[in-house]
Parts: sequence; structure tokens; C-alpha cells
Amino acid sequence: MKRLTFLAQLSRLWQHDPTRLLCVGLDPDPERLPSGLGDPREPEPLFRFLTGIVEATHSYCCAFKPQIAHFAAHGWEGVLAKLIAWIHEHYPEIPVILDAKRGDIGSTAAHYATEAFVRYRADALTVNPYMGSDSLAPYWERFPDRGLFILCRTSNPGGDDLQFLLLTSGERLFARVAHLAASRWNPHGQTGLVVGATYPGEIAQVRVLAPELPLLVPGIGAQGGDIAAAVAAGYRSAAFPGLILNSSRAILYASCGPDWQEAAARSAQATARAIAKAVDAVERQGVAGR
Amino acid sequence: MKRLTFLAQLSRLWQHDPTRLLCVGLDPDPERLPSGLGDPREPEPLFRFLTGIVEATHSYCCAFKPQIAHFAAHGWEGVLAKLIAWIHEHYPEIPVILDAKRGDIGSTAAHYATEAFVRYRADALTVNPYMGSDSLAPYWERFPDRGLFILCRTSNPGGDDLQFLLLTSGERLFARVAHLAASRWNPHGQTGLVVGATYPGEIAQVRVLAPELPLLVPGIGAQGGDIAAAVAAGYRSAAFPGLILNSSRAILYASCGPDWQEAAARSAQATARAIAKAVDAVERQGVAGR
Repeated sequence: MKRLTFLAQLSRLWQHDPTRLLCVGLDPDPERLPSGLGDPREPEPLFRFLTGIVEATHSYCCAFKPQIAHFAAHGWEGVLAKLIAWIHEHYPEIPVILDAKRGDIGSTAAHYATEAFVRYRADALTVNPYMGSDSLAPYWERFPDRGLFILCRTSNPGGDDLQFLLLTSGERLFARVAHLAASRWNPHGQTGLVVGATYPGEIAQVRVLAPELPLLVPGIGAQGGDIAAAVAAGYRSAAFPGLILNSSRAILYASCGPDWQEAAARSAQATARAIAKAVDAVERQGVAGR
Repeated sequence: MKRLTFLAQLSRLWQHDPTRLLCVGLDPDPERLPSGLGDPREPEPLFRFLTGIVEATHSYCCAFKPQIAHFAAHGWEGVLAKLIAWIHEHYPEIPVILDAKRGDIGSTAAHYATEAFVRYRADALTVNPYMGSDSLAPYWERFPDRGLFILCRTSNPGGDDLQFLLLTSGERLFARVAHLAASRWNPHGQTGLVVGATYPGEIAQVRVLAPELPLLVPGIGAQGGDIAAAVAAGYRSAAFPGLILNSSRAILYASCGPDWQEAAARSAQATARAIAKAVDAVERQGVAGR
């Protein structure tokens, strides 16, 4: 069956519930896998863990985001492919964002696009903007139906080193990226931006520069970003909230005991509730008035 | 047997021959594999092709550089691991640079470091600077003996989009990256830079900003960069030339007929001779006088 485009998937989920902004990051760490699943270095226990997390959290989230390095470090490409296929089969309405932050010249980017969208059948991909337009073009030329999240402002401390540099145009580098993503780098309307939750003021700045784009916001939960501030800064409207708030470790490793699945569900639910509350607050204040 | 550090490998090769600056890029493309090797979509013919290229070119080069997307697109991780192990076994003196251009926050970068240096046993890795210092630290903290080539100025046209932006400090963004790589981003002396051959003036600029760093220069050969200009701009001295000139397609696909191996050897030899001639010219003009 043909899958909907990434944007159509999001729109459909948000039509039913415009507060459904949680994305569950799937970053398996063998050291932190719950006990009782079997050898955490084997693919089978890992697959059971990740599908268990998906089962426990799917009703609270609008996307799953596997981070590819956590698989590639251990040669678990097969598990990643099987996991995405399993999510497509069991929860076809929920898009999968492959977090790979790829960036290379055109002919190589075409291979990365094949990796993400053909081999793994992801619905969206994160990419790095440092190499510019022709390093992005292969994704939008060959896969205009898939989402493309360009790194803009990241939530790690070192993000400042380049992203916060001031240009002679008066912009910071990340603002320039936001501007490009909202214009030249979005020929098919599939582009979004990655903006860290630890900088709500900058989410607001990016929202002004890219009023239509979906923003993928890592850093809520374990990384300590403030949900209410992120929602106030990045939420668009009930018609298309345009905000995807990722939490990984706080949900995945909510418990390392036998109750890991219930604990993950509770953590996802609590996060989803905090998001819904934040959305309600923004709606009450009147988004139109911003 | 313990491998030498990446820099020690380079130094030893360059001690014998300071003109040995060629790097052979291993970017397999199933569409362009020579006929007669078998089905180009099977791992075994691919492995025979790549090891055949290594055999044919090893005496002309100072490094091999497999580009990971060309393997990952087709699920050929096993071939990549086997290829690197085979190079280590047969030509242990020649370092392998894994071209992956990774870039992510610290905890994820640690997984990418494991992928490159433990799983694939690469001697060096290319990385992306957009996420800043803590996205680079895991490589140098855990693997101070391996090389780390940070993207600085890339040879693709879109490279201008961000890398050429002018900062209020008066630098271009790529110059800022070169400056960081030569200072804060090089705690163990393992850092190098990627600078495209199509911009020799900028190689010269980077050489001034980072006088000690090895520069990995893609874009000679098929991408049309001028060897003489790149050498004149980036060559340090006979003691440590500090320049690695990569050619991929012009060598790999020198012939698609039964003479592919001889053709690759001839192409590598011709490139190595052009490099040696360029080095001689620079030496005659007196490097010290620059």
C-alpha cells in the first residue's frame, strides 16, 4: 500500500488532535536496556525492546525517531530496517523520522537518500546544511513526498560555536539557515527545521523566519528543555501546529526493571499531557494575536 | 598487531616519499562496475572490484578513502568492514580514511566514533563541524590516535551557501572553522581539514590559518581540480607535506572493460606523477620563501 506523504501523515494526525506533538526518539543503548529481555547485545532482545516501546507509546505520539548511530555502532542495520517495517505495518498512520544528519555532495547525497528512503523506508530524514543547496537537492528531487529536517539551531552547548556566529547581514548563522529553508531550500514544501528546546527564544525567532515549516525540537525530557516555553515559541495554529517535540531517554529508560513498558507509557503520557496543557495555554492566549 | 597512529602512518610514508600525496577514494557505484566481475549488486563481485583497485593503486597512494554512503545505500556494511580489514592485512602501512561526514551531539557522536573506529577500524574519519565542539569531543577523547578531518571548504557549488558567508569578525565561515580546527578543536594534534581542490586560493588561506594541519583535498581528477594549484597552495614541506589529494572516479572507473585494473593503475600513476611534478615545482621555488 502506498504511504501518504510525510506532511499528509502529520496533517491527518493533527486534524484529530492538534496537541499530539510528541515524537518518541528510539535511541537504543545496550548499557541501559531493561533487564530480563535477554542479552542486550543481541538483535532479538533489542527488537523486542524497541517494538515494546512503540506499542506502549504510539497513542501519545505523532512520530517515531530512530537515531541511526545507535544502530550502526553495533552493526544493527537489520534491526533498524525491521523496526521501521514493523512500525509501518502496525501503526501505518505514524510517520518515522530517521535521525541521521547526513550531509555530502550531490552524488553521495543521492546514496544517502537511497539509504534513508529506499533501504529503510523512512518518512522523513534529518540532514546537515553545512555543504549547501546541492547537498540537499538529491533528497527533494528524488523524494519530494518525504520530509527533510535541516539542522538549524541545536540544543547542545557547542551549537554556539558556528550556529550563533553573527553575519555581516545582521543575522546569526542559524537564522540564515532558517531563512534558506523557508525559501530556496523548500521547492516542494517538504522542508522542516531542527531547533533545540533549550533555546525557546530562538525557536520563536525561527518561527518568525519560517512561519509555515514544521519544527523538530529535540531536547525535551532528558535534555531538560521546557515544554511550555517551546510550545509558546513554536506552535503555529490548531490547523497545522507545525511542532514535533522529541523525547528519547526519558521515555525509553523510564524504568530498567520489569515494568519498563508501563513506565515508558506513563512517561509518554505525562509528556503528552504537559504538551496538551501548553498548547491549551497558547490557544487561550490567542495564537492569532502573536 | 597494534596499528600506528594515523599521523605516524602518514609521517612514515612521507619520510620515504614526500610526493606521495594521492588518496584513492573507494566509492563503489553498481552502475559503473566493470563488466565480467559478476552481478554488480552482489557483495562478492564488489569486494573483488575494490580489492582489485587497492592492489592496482596501493604503491601510488598515501591513503584509501571509502565513502560510506556508497555502501550503506545497498546494505553493504559487511563489504565495507571486510574491505578495510583486507587493506589493513595486505597494506598495513596505508591508512584508511572513512568518509562519513558525521555530526551529532556528544552521546550520539560517541556511537558514530564506535562505528568508525571500532566496528570499521578506520584510521581516520571525516566529520561535520555544524554542531560545534561537543559534537567533536567524543572522537578526540576516546580515539586520540585516529585522524579527524573536519569539513571546512567543500568543492561543491552549494558550498558557498554557508561556508562563504562573511562574519562580523571579518572572516568567512570556513576560515572560522579552520581557525577553530587549528586551536580549540585539536587537543591531541589529530585534527585535519577537508578543503576542496576547486578553490586553490582558499586552500592557501586555510594553510595560513592552520599551518600544521593535514588537509584532505577532494576534487582532483573527475571533479576537475587543478593538481598544480592545489599543491602550490597547500603543500607544507618535505618533512611533513600535510596534503592528501583525493581522486575517486577518475581512478575507479578509468576503464569498464576487462583492463579495469591496469587502467586504474595507469590513472593512479599518472595522477601521482602530476602530483610529484607539482611538488618538485614548489620545492624548487622554495617553500621557505612563502
